[in-house]
Amino acid sequence: MQKNDGISMSVIRRLPRYYRFLCELKERRIERVSSTKLAEIMNTTASQVRQDLNCFGGFGQQGYGYSVSQLKEEIQKILGLNNNYKAILIGAGNFGSAIAKHLDFDKLGFELIGCFDSDPAKKGESLGDLTVQSDGDIEAFCSQNRIDAAFLCIPRSSAERTVARLYGLGIRSYWNFSHYDIASRYPDAVVENVHLNDNLMTLCYRMTNN
Amino acid sequence: MQKNDGISMSVIRRLPRYYRFLCELKERRIERVSSTKLAEIMNTTASQVRQDLNCFGGFGQQGYGYSVSQLKEEIQKILGLNNNYKAILIGAGNFGSAIAKHLDFDKLGFELIGCFDSDPAKKGESLGDLTVQSDGDIEAFCSQNRIDAAFLCIPRSSAERTVARLYGLGIRSYWNFSHYDIASRYPDAVVENVHLNDNLMTLCYRMTNN
Repeated sequence: MQKNDGISMSVIRRLPRYYRFLCELKERRIERVSSTKLAEIMNTTASQVRQDLNCFGGFGQQGYGYSVSQLKEEIQKILGLNNNYKAILIGAGNFGSAIAKHLDFDKLGFELIGCFDSDPAKKGESLGDLTVQSDGDIEAFCSQNRIDAAFLCIPRSSAERTVARLYGLGIRSYWNFSHYDIASRYPDAVVENVHLNDNLMTLCYRMTNN
Repeated sequence: MQKNDGISMSVIRRLPRYYRFLCELKERRIERVSSTKLAEIMNTTASQVRQDLNCFGGFGQQGYGYSVSQLKEEIQKILGLNNNYKAILIGAGNFGSAIAKHLDFDKLGFELIGCFDSDPAKKGESLGDLTVQSDGDIEAFCSQNRIDAAFLCIPRSSAERTVARLYGLGIRSYWNFSHYDIASRYPDAVVENVHLNDNLMTLCYRMTNN
């Protein structure tokens, strides 16, 4: 059913939103949804919705709309949310700790199995179910555990050296909150960047030029 | 010099990155930069760089490149980073607190002047230089202070009601970490969304389909 070769990133970036809305519809015990209704929630057109979902094989029946739970399951599979990727968090400062506590990783395809900080004072601190480990223990931990991804909540200044170590340990996927440009140094890495500073500056621009 | 009417959002979203790189170049005391060098840092082409900067009037001299400090100042002005917009933070949980402590708001165009939480237990807690106030005090605070923007670090479930209050108080700009779709309810609001969940699901998709 899946035919997701060469899907554009803009379609891919809409998938999590479809998924979120379908989860909400399911929670509200709604069983079927039309492309028109989905378009309304997604703030787009019905034709765009049909086109998006057709990229992945199309799941609707003309005149019947989509089965909410079937479409949710399919998108969940396409997104790979059942894959239970093992991740480590690097940087247990204010921001890293908040990320660790704030997100429901298992619903997002990940299991956070370790967290590390270079500050010796943080070693042994609890972070949800985890205990902060020393930065120096990353190698030992990675040799004992399969690690699929690293979440980087560290400043740019330490990111370059840290990514070199993680890459050397075979980690190829990064959720990157630092401003270090991993993708241009490691073209084969899969990187999602979150640039909060850029985002806030964009808000500032739009307020200024509205 | 500014001619930024009808600039596409994709150009606008690149401006903070130009700005960041120019700040770095300035810190390294580099005085001039060519479009080729900027393109290399930005991971794009020199022609794209010239085209982007031309949208705002162009600042380079053929053969001389750009003056780092002049271009930095100009982009700072275009972004409105000197405007010192007054902002309040709603939601001082793990995530909101981390945001409040983690970011250098004054360098990003904002001054955080109040933070509020609906949990009575949080009232009076320190958050950097601020003290967490009760959610119920928002109206009084906004009547005594000019508020330009609200940063929403609250769950979707309480966002709808909170935004209705803030909008009623005249706040039209939002940095939104909740999944509540402010822009579709209030088309005249300026909204920047940060959807961390969607971002992590996209990483999961890309790892699965790499």
